[in-house]
Amino acid sequence: REYQGAPTGTDLECEGWRQEAALRMLNNNLDPEVAEKPEELVVYGGTGRAARSWDAYDAILEELRTLPDDETLLVQSGKPVGRFETHERAPRVLIANSNLVGRWDDWEHFHELEAEGKIMYGQMTAGSWAYIGTQGIIQGTFETLAELARQHFEGDLSGKIVATAGLGGMGGAQPLAVTMNGGVCIAAEVDEERIDRRIETGYCMEKVDDVDEAIERAEEAAEAGEAYSVGVHVNAAELHERFLERGFVPDVVTDQTSAHDALEGYYPAGYTVEEADELRESDPETYREESLETMERHVDGILELQDRGAVAFEYGNNIRGQVEDHREERPWPVSGSEPDERQPFDFPGFVPAYIRPQFCRGKGPFRWVALSGDPADIHRTDEAVLELFPEKDHLRRWIELAQDEIQFQGLPSRVCWLGYSTEGDEELTERARFALRINELVAEGEISAPVVVTRDHLDAGSVASPNRETEAMKDGTDAVADWPILNALLNCAAGADIVSVHDGGGVGIGNALHANNHVVLDGSDLAAEKARRVFTTDPGMGVIRHADAGYEEALSEARESNVEVPMATEADLER
Amino acid sequence: REYQGAPTGTDLECEGWRQEAALRMLNNNLDPEVAEKPEELVVYGGTGRAARSWDAYDAILEELRTLPDDETLLVQSGKPVGRFETHERAPRVLIANSNLVGRWDDWEHFHELEAEGKIMYGQMTAGSWAYIGTQGIIQGTFETLAELARQHFEGDLSGKIVATAGLGGMGGAQPLAVTMNGGVCIAAEVDEERIDRRIETGYCMEKVDDVDEAIERAEEAAEAGEAYSVGVHVNAAELHERFLERGFVPDVVTDQTSAHDALEGYYPAGYTVEEADELRESDPETYREESLETMERHVDGILELQDRGAVAFEYGNNIRGQVEDHREERPWPVSGSEPDERQPFDFPGFVPAYIRPQFCRGKGPFRWVALSGDPADIHRTDEAVLELFPEKDHLRRWIELAQDEIQFQGLPSRVCWLGYSTEGDEELTERARFALRINELVAEGEISAPVVVTRDHLDAGSVASPNRETEAMKDGTDAVADWPILNALLNCAAGADIVSVHDGGGVGIGNALHANNHVVLDGSDLAAEKARRVFTTDPGMGVIRHADAGYEEALSEARESNVEVPMATEADLER
Ligand SMILES: NC(=O)c1ccc[n+]([C@@H]2O[C@H](COP(=O)([O-])OP(=O)(O)OC[C@H]3O[C@@H](n4cnc5c(N)ncnc54)[C@H](O)[C@@H]3O)[C@@H](O)[C@H]2O)c1
Ligand SMILES: NC(=O)c1ccc[n+]([C@@H]2O[C@H](COP(=O)([O-])OP(=O)(O)OC[C@H]3O[C@@H](n4cnc5c(N)ncnc54)[C@H](O)[C@@H]3O)[C@@H](O)[C@H]2O)c1
Repeated sequence: REYQGAPTGTDLECEGWRQEAALRMLNNNLDPEVAEKPEELVVYGGTGRAARSWDAYDAILEELRTLPDDETLLVQSGKPVGRFETHERAPRVLIANSNLVGRWDDWEHFHELEAEGKIMYGQMTAGSWAYIGTQGIIQGTFETLAELARQHFEGDLSGKIVATAGLGGMGGAQPLAVTMNGGVCIAAEVDEERIDRRIETGYCMEKVDDVDEAIERAEEAAEAGEAYSVGVHVNAAELHERFLERGFVPDVVTDQTSAHDALEGYYPAGYTVEEADELRESDPETYREESLETMERHVDGILELQDRGAVAFEYGNNIRGQVEDHREERPWPVSGSEPDERQPFDFPGFVPAYIRPQFCRGKGPFRWVALSGDPADIHRTDEAVLELFPEKDHLRRWIELAQDEIQFQGLPSRVCWLGYSTEGDEELTERARFALRINELVAEGEISAPVVVTRDHLDAGSVASPNRETEAMKDGTDAVADWPILNALLNCAAGADIVSVHDGGGVGIGNALHANNHVVLDGSDLAAEKARRVFTTDPGMGVIRHADAGYEEALSEARESNVEVPMATEADLER
Repeated sequence: REYQGAPTGTDLECEGWRQEAALRMLNNNLDPEVAEKPEELVVYGGTGRAARSWDAYDAILEELRTLPDDETLLVQSGKPVGRFETHERAPRVLIANSNLVGRWDDWEHFHELEAEGKIMYGQMTAGSWAYIGTQGIIQGTFETLAELARQHFEGDLSGKIVATAGLGGMGGAQPLAVTMNGGVCIAAEVDEERIDRRIETGYCMEKVDDVDEAIERAEEAAEAGEAYSVGVHVNAAELHERFLERGFVPDVVTDQTSAHDALEGYYPAGYTVEEADELRESDPETYREESLETMERHVDGILELQDRGAVAFEYGNNIRGQVEDHREERPWPVSGSEPDERQPFDFPGFVPAYIRPQFCRGKGPFRWVALSGDPADIHRTDEAVLELFPEKDHLRRWIELAQDEIQFQGLPSRVCWLGYSTEGDEELTERARFALRINELVAEGEISAPVVVTRDHLDAGSVASPNRETEAMKDGTDAVADWPILNALLNCAAGADIVSVHDGGGVGIGNALHANNHVVLDGSDLAAEKARRVFTTDPGMGVIRHADAGYEEALSEARESNVEVPMATEADLER
């Protein structure tokens, strides 16, 4: 099927902008500029799909085109399954993807159902129609590396070498996020086309086949203090092994291969991509085994580099969990010659290391999309956000860099981290202030068509994911999944236009539960009402979730911004 | 703490009836007439609680008393954690209980968190404040036995002996449901006080200590065609073993011990209740092991009785699943002397056997509670439901029996099975018609105070539970949990006043996900609007869920009652 992406402009296919926004966002997810394999409905992250099948896709569009302002469409794992009367303050679309009852909540059962067309992997933003291409992740990667630089390198990556792997839909943001922070990036990627694609879209500078060549170029750039990135056409495990042979230790080591899915996301060493793809078809069990053995070597390399002085962290792909599970089946370590005591979880996840302090304040990857298709609309919002928050230097740096460096993919969009804080406005959170400002600009005609505000599922109060977002929570409630469910219900109650709940996401089936929402800013009073409420409840969930776990930053935010925390004592709030 | 139950009458502690209803329902759940152990906040079903702790309980009440009509309270595993502005068409309370991320979704992790006060077991209706005592389950038990009688005994249990076990909060309904169907019941129960309690409240007729005596009395009554019930003070496993020794085979065999929880719900043989309670404290591991060994004997007995001609079924306590898991650890069978090929799942669950055809039509245990506390209000609703559905003979029989036989516990309430069907009314489902009629009666003052309508979590479209409600689904989607999540979100969108999502329920942590809702009928137009929508969306979820799985009854219901099933073809609907 030939695929075009989202309709643009101000003519509607649907009965209103809320339904139209859903239709455009779904199609935007499948834009060939945005999706990794639009012909298979795969958006990103292994097999994260936007709809269960092309028939289901057609049926969703058909439903959206005829959906009135007081009905709600139900999408179950990428298939439209029902439609009922609700009211205009309620969501127009409700989505639940990939959810399984706990005991059956694993890849094995999921793949059985998937093979029969009974379920779909929604990843985080794919099946909720909120993916906006590599640009969506780049801000998070930029923020994470900036925080890492603050903690380890006095706020600057220049002269530092970051080694990573995986240049897929999200991992492809890494080289640019490193260079935007002034550093040097070496990224291993087995699929040459992916490297080419990152170079074409300006995310990566060069491609080489040889690890030694990559090291040499990286060292030269680092010495000169120049920002530089190179994609190496090699398996991540082999990259590290060659580093260790040469005695080369990067300053930072991480990876974003799709290790969360051993069969469809990760490539075993010793095969070309074509050979591996064949093996996956002909003998999935051997593929899986080989893939996990490569992950063991990969993690072993990261741990050894960490021992030799690199700052190591897992970047949310559950490679530590995969290796830990697999170790029960085979001896360890793989690459070293002596048995050792290293455990895969001996290097930290990026959330407790760099993100949680922000979640405590309700900060997370707020993103917005211009439904007009006109980049000028996003530029107007860029101005608006800087006008609203002139004191945020870091935000200014990000917006300026983004304007210079980031090519739009599909519908023009932007992402930045905003939180709950009501500083500077008694009544409104940061997120609400900005959303209301966009809504005004739409009403005034300064923005040519409605804007949709959404976010990543990775957000302050929307996810339970013990190997990533909720790793090592202070009170041990990493696995408590009441929170994402309450997040979805509350945002539904507050009037979000699309609400979604997914299992799995970036860490794989059974390892996470998370929720998302969209609000359509069409300039109306209704949109203002919804935006004011949803952009209070949504970051508010982040504050109360972390306050409940006993984080002082969250309790301070609650006190400073008047968030109700029913059982918090005065003493808690004063800490 | 001395505990009184719900306030009654028309004076409000809260700012409106929606909040007041939540407060009264929570307190009603803890009424000493209703709850099994109110002093521990335990309502029923092992450790199903209404609030996490007495502090949490007090805080919930405090929040409800001050909650305005445009705010929503969040309850996370029995603890109030937040409160946000929403709007009057949104729920006043959102509840998520006992939910864990899939991989950690088991009793072991749950008990660790519970011991630290970080989570609560909500069972099905306990933590969602919808439990109404044994009367709540009796209608389901009555319906199930009536359907069993239709399938196996020409519609009548007279002259038939039903052997069962467990006379707890829900299991206690069994003897009465058997006698209401004209039959004879022998029920094993290890806790003598429970038998006494069922006798006091009119649910069971007699108590004996000796199995032989119970058999003799039962056989006499059966021969005389008399309805009769006897509680035997014995362990269920021993009951069956004695049956087999004597060569006695009941016509029907089932049980409702709390086998879903080996540690806190089930009693091992060979101990008195006091001895077992001590063992549980001093050596939980041994307790669990002994408990599971007794379950093996128990299931072995059921299977042997089935082989000898009894109609056997599991009554939703997951005893088959428990034994299947445990068999991996030890030899089988226990009581027989020869190894055999019997598997625990060789006897069916009650849902595929007797309930699913009703779920396909959106039928389920609709229940309503008179907030006034006045039994006359329920009697008025009894009349109303019979006036509305004069053609339903079975309903008439139930209501008349209920009026004669069922003592109210706590707030007066009633339950009956109603579905989606719009037969007799173009626009409204059965559930909506009846709810709107109650709302009118409240408006007209014929009912003295508002009525709350809710239901069991066990309902047509609100649960994923592969060992119970979704056992053996036609398309193999037993474990797909998107449906209960969509149910909760949709009912939230439709305007239910309380919405809840729980893990576990009657089959234990990790084995089910389910949702519930409440609508408060205060006679207002707003209540009518909410009721019309929620009592369409809620049973509608049952129709579309079963239509999606390919059940013909559901596709017929969709055709007959104009339920939108987006991807169903004309051919599907005409089947
Ligand atoms: N940190 C975050 O915020 C975050 C957020 C979401 C997801 N993730 C996770 O990051 C991972 C990557 O996501 P994506 O969307 O880029 O996935 P993707 O599937 O689009 O790309 C993965 C890439 O890794 C390459 N690859 C696989 N195995 C390799 C190996 N052994 N050596 C070298 N290259 C290899 C593949 O060829 C592919 O290009 C996923 O696990 C995702 O869940 C991280
Ligand atoms: N069929 C349904 O519709 C349905 C609905 C919900 C729950 N259930 C399940 O039914 C079970 C019972 O629920 P409940 O609320 O009555 O629980 P409960 O904990 O109040 O009562 C269980 C009773 O079983 C007795 N018991 C335990 N082990 C025994 C043994 N080996 N022999 C004899 N008696 C024993 C206990 O003393 C107790 O009185 C639970 O597992 C519940 O989840 C069924």
